[in-house]
Amino acid sequence: MFFASDNAGPAHPQVMQALVDANQGFAMPYGNDPIMADVRARLREIFEAPEAAIYLVATGTAANSLALATLGQPWQTVFCSPVAHIHEDECNAPEFYSGGAKLTLVGDSDKITPEALRTAIHAEETRGVHGPQRGPVSITNVTERGRVYTCAEIAALSAVAKEFGLPVHLDGARFANALVALDCTAAEMTWKAGVDAVSFGGTKNGLPGVEAVIFFDPAKAWEFELRRKRGAHLFSKHRYLSAQMLAFLTDDLWLGSARRANANAARLIDGLRAIPAASFLHEPQANMIFANLPRATHQRLHDAGAVYYIWSGTLEGDDPVEPLAARLVCDWSIGHDQIDQFLKLAAG
Amino acid sequence: MFFASDNAGPAHPQVMQALVDANQGFAMPYGNDPIMADVRARLREIFEAPEAAIYLVATGTAANSLALATLGQPWQTVFCSPVAHIHEDECNAPEFYSGGAKLTLVGDSDKITPEALRTAIHAEETRGVHGPQRGPVSITNVTERGRVYTCAEIAALSAVAKEFGLPVHLDGARFANALVALDCTAAEMTWKAGVDAVSFGGTKNGLPGVEAVIFFDPAKAWEFELRRKRGAHLFSKHRYLSAQMLAFLTDDLWLGSARRANANAARLIDGLRAIPAASFLHEPQANMIFANLPRATHQRLHDAGAVYYIWSGTLEGDDPVEPLAARLVCDWSIGHDQIDQFLKLAAG
Amino acid sequence: MFFASDNAGPAHPQVMQALVDANQGFAMPYGNDPIMADVRARLREIFEAPEAAIYLVATGTAANSLALATLGQPWQTVFCSPVAHIHEDECNAPEFYSGGAKLTLVGDSDKITPEALRTAIHAEETRGVHGPQRGPVSITNVTERGRVYTCAEIAALSAVAKEFGLPVHLDGARFANALVALDCTAAEMTWKAGVDAVSFGGTKNGLPGVEAVIFFDPAKAWEFELRRKRGAHLFSKHRYLSAQMLAFLTDDLWLGSARRANANAARLIDGLRAIPAASFLHEPQANMIFANLPRATHQRLHDAGAVYYIWSGTLEGDDPVEPLAARLVCDWSIGHDQIDQFLKLAAG
Amino acid sequence: MFFASDNAGPAHPQVMQALVDANQGFAMPYGNDPIMADVRARLREIFEAPEAAIYLVATGTAANSLALATLGQPWQTVFCSPVAHIHEDECNAPEFYSGGAKLTLVGDSDKITPEALRTAIHAEETRGVHGPQRGPVSITNVTERGRVYTCAEIAALSAVAKEFGLPVHLDGARFANALVALDCTAAEMTWKAGVDAVSFGGTKNGLPGVEAVIFFDPAKAWEFELRRKRGAHLFSKHRYLSAQMLAFLTDDLWLGSARRANANAARLIDGLRAIPAASFLHEPQANMIFANLPRATHQRLHDAGAVYYIWSGTLEGDDPVEPLAARLVCDWSIGHDQIDQFLKLAAG
Repeated sequence: MFFASDNAGPAHPQVMQALVDANQGFAMPYGNDPIMADVRARLREIFEAPEAAIYLVATGTAANSLALATLGQPWQTVFCSPVAHIHEDECNAPEFYSGGAKLTLVGDSDKITPEALRTAIHAEETRGVHGPQRGPVSITNVTERGRVYTCAEIAALSAVAKEFGLPVHLDGARFANALVALDCTAAEMTWKAGVDAVSFGGTKNGLPGVEAVIFFDPAKAWEFELRRKRGAHLFSKHRYLSAQMLAFLTDDLWLGSARRANANAARLIDGLRAIPAASFLHEPQANMIFANLPRATHQRLHDAGAVYYIWSGTLEGDDPVEPLAARLVCDWSIGHDQIDQFLKLAAG
Repeated sequence: MFFASDNAGPAHPQVMQALVDANQGFAMPYGNDPIMADVRARLREIFEAPEAAIYLVATGTAANSLALATLGQPWQTVFCSPVAHIHEDECNAPEFYSGGAKLTLVGDSDKITPEALRTAIHAEETRGVHGPQRGPVSITNVTERGRVYTCAEIAALSAVAKEFGLPVHLDGARFANALVALDCTAAEMTWKAGVDAVSFGGTKNGLPGVEAVIFFDPAKAWEFELRRKRGAHLFSKHRYLSAQMLAFLTDDLWLGSARRANANAARLIDGLRAIPAASFLHEPQANMIFANLPRATHQRLHDAGAVYYIWSGTLEGDDPVEPLAARLVCDWSIGHDQIDQFLKLAAG
Repeated sequence: MFFASDNAGPAHPQVMQALVDANQGFAMPYGNDPIMADVRARLREIFEAPEAAIYLVATGTAANSLALATLGQPWQTVFCSPVAHIHEDECNAPEFYSGGAKLTLVGDSDKITPEALRTAIHAEETRGVHGPQRGPVSITNVTERGRVYTCAEIAALSAVAKEFGLPVHLDGARFANALVALDCTAAEMTWKAGVDAVSFGGTKNGLPGVEAVIFFDPAKAWEFELRRKRGAHLFSKHRYLSAQMLAFLTDDLWLGSARRANANAARLIDGLRAIPAASFLHEPQANMIFANLPRATHQRLHDAGAVYYIWSGTLEGDDPVEPLAARLVCDWSIGHDQIDQFLKLAAG
Repeated sequence: MFFASDNAGPAHPQVMQALVDANQGFAMPYGNDPIMADVRARLREIFEAPEAAIYLVATGTAANSLALATLGQPWQTVFCSPVAHIHEDECNAPEFYSGGAKLTLVGDSDKITPEALRTAIHAEETRGVHGPQRGPVSITNVTERGRVYTCAEIAALSAVAKEFGLPVHLDGARFANALVALDCTAAEMTWKAGVDAVSFGGTKNGLPGVEAVIFFDPAKAWEFELRRKRGAHLFSKHRYLSAQMLAFLTDDLWLGSARRANANAARLIDGLRAIPAASFLHEPQANMIFANLPRATHQRLHDAGAVYYIWSGTLEGDDPVEPLAARLVCDWSIGHDQIDQFLKLAAG
């Protein structure tokens, strides 16, 4: 009963097989392997972006930090949600990679609204060289709270950014989970909605550890390559990144895995809805659920070995009915038996 | 006939099997997987260093840059060879990670001598806050020119560093190749010889992409952990790093692979010695050879599909007997048939 | 009628005379001039801190950024008010000097409360290496909104910081204005209240351009010296900084100038209180006033040549009675005639 | 008898008077003072560069570091002499301001030759993303060894830089001393010879502390302004920088002071030539002399209170005739009596 994160599950067996298959003889290093050529072609096809510059790195933090550093400048501020991964969970990596840019927290929610974004951008308006300069807008889809921006919502945010000439970055650590939730195309969720660069996640969706960075305008490609190498994120035996990503993109494995993860979450959500003492912090829309359960329920789940984060409050406490929030993340691999066992325990 | 680098060969099948075996169910992320506990224990045993702080990263540049940044300060200078990988091949990653430290090039060779080191350290002596401050000494074993520092030579360099209170870093991208060439223990080549931190290479010796960073004094462990995360080098699905490294360390695979690589090089060296037109730039000591061959020989090898770097000069040229230097690197996997075919072509 | 800022007025004539007097013959550079020895002695005396490390720089941003970089680490976050100068007016200098630290905005006011500080510190509590680490607390006295922390209020904030082992920095760009408003000693407002480092302002209080940085614990003195030089803030002809500061500290010129500035503001405040259409955004406590005046009044002042910032709203607009906020800063030099002329115009 | 540096002498009285004169009433801060407008106009006239972007900072290290950071990128290397001030005397400020660029030391002398420059640039040629990328070329005139590049020599270096598309920076800490030695125009020594940006020194030539940074192509002006503010080098009471510089440029004070300094050096040189035991390390060309004198002579000068750097060797030693090198710098203010007294002592 592991619901702590989708970053802890196994890789899909097809991916592991692709790694083994790739392990033949010599391959040119540093992204010059033939598998990478296929990855590039496939992603350009998926994104309907024949000119896109496409790179692989091994961590989501690397993808985000390098993309933002390439889009912005050290004297700028990045506009993002106060719960953005780049703000809360990357130990100042965006600040480090950008050379000291600031992050401006927009609104008070996981989803930025156009109004909040415009307000935040305006607030940086009038101080000449004194204040930070306006920089990239970064949004996350699926958000860090399990909600999904629609393509129209993304387009509305991009429109605000474009008013001010600012580039838009999409942190897509759970890109596929959002895409299948929206039932739209990768192009619609990105460049057709005004997004300039994407961190295209693989690790949370069944890869051992690969993310793609995609720039729809290849003008900054060379700068990105230099930043990646300077950041120590260029792999010599790059084929092992390429092979993961190619397997992911083959036969729509990436979409299938995301559908499985979302379906697993839906099963869990449905079960929780049937439990009177359970309630949702907000409507879950992909594979991540924030739900209140009584302390005694948490205790029971905990004792039975369920693994997940208590999001607010603490197991220690006297009141057995006090609601504590749980974050429950379903990956592609979690079994229905596990979900059902969890629900049975939760129902009490 | 691939002799371009040991960073382009396949991983050992046992390593791939370990990756597949590790791919079961959920594992705690970020280095909290149980395999990592075994890696830590095994490396402490190998290095006879029960207190050592041990971390995994995926690239050699990350290992070097993070280790040096942790050992030094932004206003210092790192003492290294003018051909050090950290100087020539990391696109300013050491400067980036250190926050702008300088590299002082010591002597004019791949192997630093104690005299040259003392001279270089003295030269930074008298300028108060004006000059860079003296920082870590970094040496590479096997060197970038295929030679090997003996344990006594390392100890002599460390002794100079210690005179001035400077820490010593060992870039061990080819650590195992040096170790088997010297027939000494890992402890003898490192902390017993005064080394404070090691980049312990796996990638060039049969892993898909893992290096360990080892600090013999764990006092800076937490700082390293923060630097690693901030540098985006902390893997969520860390088990796939751990599994590679554990397989590497199991049944001395790491030593066996290095012995094979060195033996492959020895076969190539022996063959080249028998060719009158061939000569060595210096005596090769591990798995990397720098040898002169006439232009016509290079052309013949090239036409037959041999892959390696022309180290000086260019294939284009009129004089067929002009000697051009080749860099020839043997990894663990290169077959005797390949070596022999190369030698046959080289013999003309 | 110049009320735009206390950073635009003239230097005190005694200071200019001191500069001229210092301009005799040769003086050892880089802070080794004899005047600096006197500065150091005098500031140690004023602060009752015989061990304090004391340095001069030429800008407030340099003082703040270098002090904070010395107190903290790149992977930390600095706790400050959302209107702190270090956040709003230094173009990411604190981020630059710290190597990419973050600033966490505490509360929603110019004055941080202990409760808000504790909440903000707690919020960075539980993410291991993932979130930024807790770093220095920085407060400003006089605040950016013209209010003054009492010594007890500073002590209460320091107590919270110390609970968590965090150092405390005081941005004292208007240190003297706060001190004379509080009628306490420099020691009481700083180290006796738990402050570790001070940016001791001179420029806004009648100097051409000098600030002192004071560390009560000299342990980080050498690091500061290196950071200052590396930041290009070490002056060769340092005596011209020293001479300004020594004149400032002689015969309590610094206190006298601050008293004059505060008295000028009091005269302006008193006058504004008598104007029915005027109101204060909050009670002014030193030499900086935030007051609402009707648009027509602003227009009249503007036409008469008064210079100050419209803090909210805009002169353009149809409604002549709509209140617009003004920021009015009085320096030591502004004449009573100027203030009275302003008041006469404001009264209409 | 102060010959330690031209950074320790007094400012010219006209400059001090200008400071006093500027100290009237309020002046707009941050470079918006009217005196700065005059400075800009005057420097554009002097440099025959009506479009040039012109800024003031207070230290030479700030001028150099900010100029180079604006001309280059963090992943590049700056080509400079091994004795360049930016390499030896700025505590890694160029590395800090550039975000971690490297400095490549060209040749083994204070004066770079076109051949050495081309060789050094070529050496960074072939490593793709792996090596640092080629960045700005920085030369110093007067050099750190007291020699002067002719305009033709500068043009030859610029021509090499331009072959590779690299910008050229001139560290002109002693710009005027070089100019009067060459008897050419400021335009001829800079943009007409291919220089893109100049650190135009004032401090070593009779100012308390001001340097101008001049970009002949204003395209990077805004970036420079942001970098200056972010580096904490933008002065609020900027008029005190402007006033120094305007006085410097008025009635050719800057040229007159440099002529005096060079003439002072010439007097010293002539006197030394008459002393059999004295010899020059190389032919002095401006206001800085490197000369050998016997140990006993140094001892005699030292005992009589002469202040200068022993450049090689040490006063302590048994052999009274062993030659030790002195660095002797003459500023504009040193009196003939001082020089003659020095010479008399040196003659023995």
